[in-house]
Amino acid sequence: MKIMAVNAGSSSLKFQLLDMPKETKLVSGVVERIGLQDSIFSMKFNGETHKEIKNIKNHSQAVQMLLSKLVSLHIVSSLDEIQGVGHRVVHGGEMFHDSVIIDDEVIASIESVNDLAPLHNPANITGIKAFKEALPNVPAIAVFDTAFHQTMEPVAYMYSVPYEWYTKYGVRKYGFHGTSHKYVSLRAAAMLDKPLNQTKVIVCHIGNGASLCAVKYGKSMDTSMGFTPLAGIAMGTRSGDIDPAIVQFISEKENKSLDEVISELNKKSGYLGLSGLSSDSRDLWEAVERGDKKSILAVEKQAKMIADYIGAYYLMLGGCDAICFTAGIGENASETRKLVVDRLGALGVELDYEQNLTRGKETVISKPSSNIKLLLIPTNEEVMIARDTLELIG
Amino acid sequence: MKIMAVNAGSSSLKFQLLDMPKETKLVSGVVERIGLQDSIFSMKFNGETHKEIKNIKNHSQAVQMLLSKLVSLHIVSSLDEIQGVGHRVVHGGEMFHDSVIIDDEVIASIESVNDLAPLHNPANITGIKAFKEALPNVPAIAVFDTAFHQTMEPVAYMYSVPYEWYTKYGVRKYGFHGTSHKYVSLRAAAMLDKPLNQTKVIVCHIGNGASLCAVKYGKSMDTSMGFTPLAGIAMGTRSGDIDPAIVQFISEKENKSLDEVISELNKKSGYLGLSGLSSDSRDLWEAVERGDKKSILAVEKQAKMIADYIGAYYLMLGGCDAICFTAGIGENASETRKLVVDRLGALGVELDYEQNLTRGKETVISKPSSNIKLLLIPTNEEVMIARDTLELIG
Repeated sequence: MKIMAVNAGSSSLKFQLLDMPKETKLVSGVVERIGLQDSIFSMKFNGETHKEIKNIKNHSQAVQMLLSKLVSLHIVSSLDEIQGVGHRVVHGGEMFHDSVIIDDEVIASIESVNDLAPLHNPANITGIKAFKEALPNVPAIAVFDTAFHQTMEPVAYMYSVPYEWYTKYGVRKYGFHGTSHKYVSLRAAAMLDKPLNQTKVIVCHIGNGASLCAVKYGKSMDTSMGFTPLAGIAMGTRSGDIDPAIVQFISEKENKSLDEVISELNKKSGYLGLSGLSSDSRDLWEAVERGDKKSILAVEKQAKMIADYIGAYYLMLGGCDAICFTAGIGENASETRKLVVDRLGALGVELDYEQNLTRGKETVISKPSSNIKLLLIPTNEEVMIARDTLELIG
Repeated sequence: MKIMAVNAGSSSLKFQLLDMPKETKLVSGVVERIGLQDSIFSMKFNGETHKEIKNIKNHSQAVQMLLSKLVSLHIVSSLDEIQGVGHRVVHGGEMFHDSVIIDDEVIASIESVNDLAPLHNPANITGIKAFKEALPNVPAIAVFDTAFHQTMEPVAYMYSVPYEWYTKYGVRKYGFHGTSHKYVSLRAAAMLDKPLNQTKVIVCHIGNGASLCAVKYGKSMDTSMGFTPLAGIAMGTRSGDIDPAIVQFISEKENKSLDEVISELNKKSGYLGLSGLSSDSRDLWEAVERGDKKSILAVEKQAKMIADYIGAYYLMLGGCDAICFTAGIGENASETRKLVVDRLGALGVELDYEQNLTRGKETVISKPSSNIKLLLIPTNEEVMIARDTLELIG
């Protein structure tokens, strides 16, 4: 059975066609600059990349183009082969604890929390509608970034702020990257050869966006992102946790509006802010090589923040079996992994420096004598989306 | 030798007269409502409290009143016996790594960081000037809340925000309660019977304001308060760490200014915000007794945040010898200590439930088998101020 996994942004559409339940990737690609001049359609298939630049007015047109390519390139003999479409949806509020089949009510529910994810949810819905238009009889499934974290208890998700901020406006920790944290914690249990319901792991999803998750017996107990993806550890351009009073101070000093300051915390902080150079981990490590002090500070600050959360989650879980690294940086930047693990000495964690040089492949990167296993696990949100889709339509 | 330890607020003046180097408290008291109708002068001496209500126009008048009381009650035979006055100063910026003798240059330096502590530094200076006026020939010493934390390294004190916020405006973590953290870590080393330069402790200063400090070999390595006292763990009325994007969201939803929202995070959050009842730990524990759910959440949330920091600092210190509880709640609320320690099981920490019932007295509250000692240590900032004063004038 073929299932499409979709991630729609405001001007982009990422897709992957998977053969399920084999979990084989048939095709992957992205349409970029939708609605702008010279949109870019690119698709990988059989090791080749098909690229086309033309004006694509909207997501509906992007979906039409994708589907006709699938037929014309004989990837599917007919569109009937696609038996489900799974959509990534960023925010499910408190309503969605799991993936669901999309109907009008579900769309209304997703729209009802638009103000919790104003950049993402409306775009996700645009993607859902475009596929529904093109494939009206194919079931569509919503897979939420927040759903995995709905198992958190109030002591983890509530902020110590006026209680009515929660009851009136839903101010609480939601957490994100849930699909990734779930996938990685499942893989970790498999690598540890332990039943999921006896496994305690800390997942470090470190990409341009980054979050940690404490997973006990397959359930999210706590996560470092918060009400929004700004909170937690330092990221490519996001500050992570700071003293909120800084917002007020900078607004006064620089005569900037609240929105401008929050925007700088989201877009001009993290790696970019401290280094003054780049939000890209690779650029930073090049600069570190040549001794650039601010870049050294930027990567060390992030590693410290990661280690701080690991310390907190280790206690929260009452010890753990493994610490997992995933996503762009977590899977590829051995230097970052080393910086983090160097700070975990008190837990009796021992890094295998040789194995740690591995990139993007499931690997045990700790020594056999390590108290806690260190695991490199490439994430795969598309497989997770396809699995949930298969289960719900199956 | 008699030394006066002073803590001046905008409308208050706390004082303690100590006999040094014996560290005996001769007199302690506070003048409240300075500059308002019906100011209150109260002073404890020989187990009795002397109280007087009258209009006290300003700090100078308060100091005059205090000094004449000392003579009229024969606590000193002449004011010449007071050989030093030590002043608590909240913010020393990056300039003061230790206590100093106050001269005009020091006053100018303290004033130069007024915008980092707009509520406190100007009041502290008012107190300094009032005593200088009354006792012009007695050396005055400034003891900074921030000084002890100046040993933090950039990776601990820098935020992952645009670097120029630091260079232009001094945005960094300063930390507070330094005098208390220093005193308690000194006492901890003594109780552990270990040289300070071989001792690693985590100090939990939990009062209405609250902060944790990781102390390695007598030096502050990290602390939970930040650029301002708003950051860190939940407190009586302060939120501690939250997703800074909440500030923007609430400002929009409630149509409140940035200043108003930050003010609610400082004054209407923490215990008060979550419980909706009170900022006072005693009220909350009473409500917990009768099963009030929001109060239970308020105290559990704070305990979780404390445990999170302990986990982080345990890693940062590479293990530790003791975890210390101090200040109003830390010294007296056995329930809070228990809630915190219940979360530390993974460290092999064992609370002695009987010893934990102690209030306000130096006590080992862990079992002998505990991996890490748990210490109850009443703080004494006045003694610390008097010690520094003695050392500098001696």
